Amino acid sequence: MSDTDDRREGLRQVERTRFAHDAAEPGADLVATEEPLEIQVGGAPIAVVMRTPGHDLELATGFLLTERIAPDAGAIRTVHHASLARDPAALDNVVRATLEGPPPDLERLRRNLFAGSSCGVCGKASIDQVLASAPPLGDDPARFEATALYPMPDRLRAAQPLFDHTGGLHAAGLFDAAGRLLVTREDVGRHNAVDKVVGWAAREGRLPLGGHALLVSGRVSFEIVQKALAARIPLVAAVSAPSSLAVSLAKASGIAVVGFLRGKGLSVYGAKQRVTGPAAFDPSTEPSASS
Amino acid sequence: MSDTDDRREGLRQVERTRFAHDAAEPGADLVATEEPLEIQVGGAPIAVVMRTPGHDLELATGFLLTERIAPDAGAIRTVHHASLARDPAALDNVVRATLEGPPPDLERLRRNLFAGSSCGVCGKASIDQVLASAPPLGDDPARFEATALYPMPDRLRAAQPLFDHTGGLHAAGLFDAAGRLLVTREDVGRHNAVDKVVGWAAREGRLPLGGHALLVSGRVSFEIVQKALAARIPLVAAVSAPSSLAVSLAKASGIAVVGFLRGKGLSVYGAKQRVTGPAAFDPSTEPSASS
Repeated sequence: MSDTDDRREGLRQVERTRFAHDAAEPGADLVATEEPLEIQVGGAPIAVVMRTPGHDLELATGFLLTERIAPDAGAIRTVHHASLARDPAALDNVVRATLEGPPPDLERLRRNLFAGSSCGVCGKASIDQVLASAPPLGDDPARFEATALYPMPDRLRAAQPLFDHTGGLHAAGLFDAAGRLLVTREDVGRHNAVDKVVGWAAREGRLPLGGHALLVSGRVSFEIVQKALAARIPLVAAVSAPSSLAVSLAKASGIAVVGFLRGKGLSVYGAKQRVTGPAAFDPSTEPSASS
Repeated sequence: MSDTDDRREGLRQVERTRFAHDAAEPGADLVATEEPLEIQVGGAPIAVVMRTPGHDLELATGFLLTERIAPDAGAIRTVHHASLARDPAALDNVVRATLEGPPPDLERLRRNLFAGSSCGVCGKASIDQVLASAPPLGDDPARFEATALYPMPDRLRAAQPLFDHTGGLHAAGLFDAAGRLLVTREDVGRHNAVDKVVGWAAREGRLPLGGHALLVSGRVSFEIVQKALAARIPLVAAVSAPSSLAVSLAKASGIAVVGFLRGKGLSVYGAKQRVTGPAAFDPSTEPSASS
């Protein structure tokens, strides 16, 4: 292979031919690096995720928390790379964690996927299962002004170091209630970018994230809201649309999902009362906004 | 919950408040439905995927093939819904398949994730693992003219029945070498949309898909190329960028990955010789295009 590693580990140079109208030109592009990362707990592999290298310890930490393998940040004793690559060309693709207490019951985690419920397999069962390990945010009083949310996408984009090179990376950013961007993480995987942000917060001692907003590129799915709930984040925003089950979980757990956050407009779903408008019209006082 | 089902099962109506500049207005949006689907083989659950209902049997069929649980379409004996929902509000979220021969060794499938290799866990090991069950397309002579690829994104978009309502769905489309769109499938999950297309082809008796092109919304990741290879599709295209490992797998397996397919331009990676330009310049004859 003549494709070579770029010094920036998140990018890799690959050969390509560019066609435009009637012309074709050989050359090279920088693309986002995608490599597997194996996460081990107590020496046992529990997951392999395809991710963009960089911030691997944050990714593993966030994964353990948002997938409820570790109940809280205090339960994670150590997280470090296992430098077992026998081939020097291999990146450092194994992270080992140790947890407080007995090892997690991985068979139970697996069975949870198939837990019975009154409706068999359905969205409500999925929501019930999430809420069983991460209770709703009921008493979190967090409110966000719509006008403080409007500038977030531009701020996230400005802070994406790799995206401009490749166009191929998802991003997640954590904001405080005033709209200040605290951290940005990029990854080929949407879920990984969120896990890196949550893992960053855990390692900074900032969990739980009451009063904060999470902005993601792309769509808001059930799993993104699930991860936000595990970190106790009361608002999840995106420039694109949410799914039905993301809205249902948001409503059941007290999270506001903001979609179509573009220019000076947005739509809010779920715990809609968390987004406030101008004083002349505050929908949080409208009956339809109670949940 | 006052959110109600839309008659079209792929869409659901949810409450929202729309903020624009200084005005806020309560109302409702149609969003893409996301519900879990449990796939069973021989009565045993093997996966739960979060998907948009519709074409569930295609999704399960495609999943079994592209994840190499069934070696080929002939090995899938039956695929049907299990109508075991005890709550009438639950959709039909379980699909049962039976395969020819002995039941698949699910423990082996699981172990494959962690198979050792000369470099431990790395992209090359991931590629070797894919090629062990789906050999390269080496002798597939398929070629595509760049000018036949340019119109594909517009054709796919025009055929997306749900997207315009929600903005929240991924799509995959299968084209023949002349650029004719054969089928389009939409889903909240990128992988699901591809599996539905492959499952459609399997149920139509059209596998393997030599000479065809797959167009996906969003990015081209390793897993998308892996699924294309399982269906023997020689070209995978997207309006967005590929990842490094998608390009590496494409190169190793003889697949052309087309990225940035916008207007009258595109970039081709991997088996670049599969895309041909105007007669005046054919990069497949250039030394740099050999792979």
